[in-house]
Amino acid sequence: MTEFGPDARAFMQSHIDDHGFLAWLDLSVEALDPGHLVMRVPYQDELTNPAIPGRDEEGMTVHGGVAATLIDTAGGMAVRSSLSDPVSTGVATIDLNVSYLRPASGDLVATADVIRTGRTVGVAEVTVESEVRGHEHDEVAVGRGSYRIFQD
Amino acid sequence: MTEFGPDARAFMQSHIDDHGFLAWLDLSVEALDPGHLVMRVPYQDELTNPAIPGRDEEGMTVHGGVAATLIDTAGGMAVRSSLSDPVSTGVATIDLNVSYLRPASGDLVATADVIRTGRTVGVAEVTVESEVRGHEHDEVAVGRGSYRIFQD
Amino acid sequence: MTEFGPDARAFMQSHIDDHGFLAWLDLSVEALDPGHLVMRVPYQDELTNPAIPGRDEEGMTVHGGVAATLIDTAGGMAVRSSLSDPVSTGVATIDLNVSYLRPASGDLVATADVIRTGRTVGVAEVTVESEVRGHEHDEVAVGRGSYRIFQD
Amino acid sequence: MTEFGPDARAFMQSHIDDHGFLAWLDLSVEALDPGHLVMRVPYQDELTNPAIPGRDEEGMTVHGGVAATLIDTAGGMAVRSSLSDPVSTGVATIDLNVSYLRPASGDLVATADVIRTGRTVGVAEVTVESEVRGHEHDEVAVGRGSYRIFQD
Repeated sequence: MTEFGPDARAFMQSHIDDHGFLAWLDLSVEALDPGHLVMRVPYQDELTNPAIPGRDEEGMTVHGGVAATLIDTAGGMAVRSSLSDPVSTGVATIDLNVSYLRPASGDLVATADVIRTGRTVGVAEVTVESEVRGHEHDEVAVGRGSYRIFQD
Repeated sequence: MTEFGPDARAFMQSHIDDHGFLAWLDLSVEALDPGHLVMRVPYQDELTNPAIPGRDEEGMTVHGGVAATLIDTAGGMAVRSSLSDPVSTGVATIDLNVSYLRPASGDLVATADVIRTGRTVGVAEVTVESEVRGHEHDEVAVGRGSYRIFQD
Repeated sequence: MTEFGPDARAFMQSHIDDHGFLAWLDLSVEALDPGHLVMRVPYQDELTNPAIPGRDEEGMTVHGGVAATLIDTAGGMAVRSSLSDPVSTGVATIDLNVSYLRPASGDLVATADVIRTGRTVGVAEVTVESEVRGHEHDEVAVGRGSYRIFQD
Repeated sequence: MTEFGPDARAFMQSHIDDHGFLAWLDLSVEALDPGHLVMRVPYQDELTNPAIPGRDEEGMTVHGGVAATLIDTAGGMAVRSSLSDPVSTGVATIDLNVSYLRPASGDLVATADVIRTGRTVGVAEVTVESEVRGHEHDEVAVGRGSYRIFQD
């Protein structure tokens, strides 16, 4: 398989399924177009932080590291998907940042969009939405990754 | 337990052990002083990315999300440890950033130092070292977290 | 003046005009609604970097510090504009990040949108567009600021 | 001049002096070794923000954009200084981040250290110290820049 076609989403998903850490988080690729990707982490009690005093109205319930992992992974796969040959090309994160906006209390759904692709560096913006106290689709975190691209 | 004393490290460790995600990563608190913390994630094959073409000399081998989780957790616990009552005080990440410097091929050891503590916002710098192709203690990632502090 | 009304844009502009650094950059507030702000830095040769070998196709022509200043200022004013009393409330930047996407060769126009407002912390996303080698309105930089809010 | 020798500091300083924006800020290179650089912005009233209600104990007095410009410039020059031929090599910022720790009330002195140099990407950490209410040499901001390296 050397072409990026209808099975690109299956290719990305198989990468996840073969990856112990990402498979444990149960990541799934829900949509994929060149430079655009939607990825989900289902809610699990194991991923959450205990309630802490005064933290009731703010902060993440799902651990921030899960959102950071999701943003890093979704952004990198989006950059790969924007390249002419995503399968044989690799990316490595240069820099990652995340702002945590609201406590997530449901599945995390990340939408990644590539905002720059070059020969050596790509950049993606990622928004993470979740249920927040009963409101669906509130933004709970946003982030951005810069990636080094390794093409043959 | 309401005081920060010799068992503070045990308190932080018990928080990890009770947390599904952090326990799965097998995080351990190796040293703890007010505002300073050392934390380890042991190497596991499950945490690594597959080799990719051209990526041989650069990028992370251990998944970047693991380092991000480690930096977020170590920085937040370091900020808590700098407060007068770490046990009953909570922190929530406002912003997290990570630069990935070299591919990690062993345990990840994070050293977190608090560089600002206030009434509402604390900031910690974190350096992550690992074995890199046989060299021990090379920096593989650095990051910084800003945390909202919730005190009674 | 204690209310945020039709003259809010004039208030923000007067803050700039009274500020030596921002006035030297010739910043202007072009549009302002609660939580949304458009701000311009006109092109000046003095703000540009010299051409460097191999840098032809990438990097900023306008100095990155100008875009960072614009993002910090636009984001902070957008957060203020989202508050009930922007005039008597102050903000101070906690954390700022910027990704530089393409070399800017014209005016820099920043659009800032608040993505979180709370009692103590606000977050804004900012996109900077410019002329890029004759193409108008290309994104040249994106960034995000987290701000500490000081209300009476 | 094609070699990096005793006049490297003079070369970096001449780059600043020829740059309208950096010269207006009155930046000076105070020390330079390969991968290590100290740079100063003298205090000027024009660079400061007005006092704002409740902001007394926190935030920057010198505008955050000045510190961001200083960190970006010092980090980029430090990366250049770490290369075999700093004079004919260029760098362009990929990503910049800054945390603001305390209000600066004097000169800003930045110390930049390169923590990674590769063929295409370099990373520098920068600490900014200033007088803070009479205490000399307090950290007022820290940041990190990732730079694309353009070598012949």
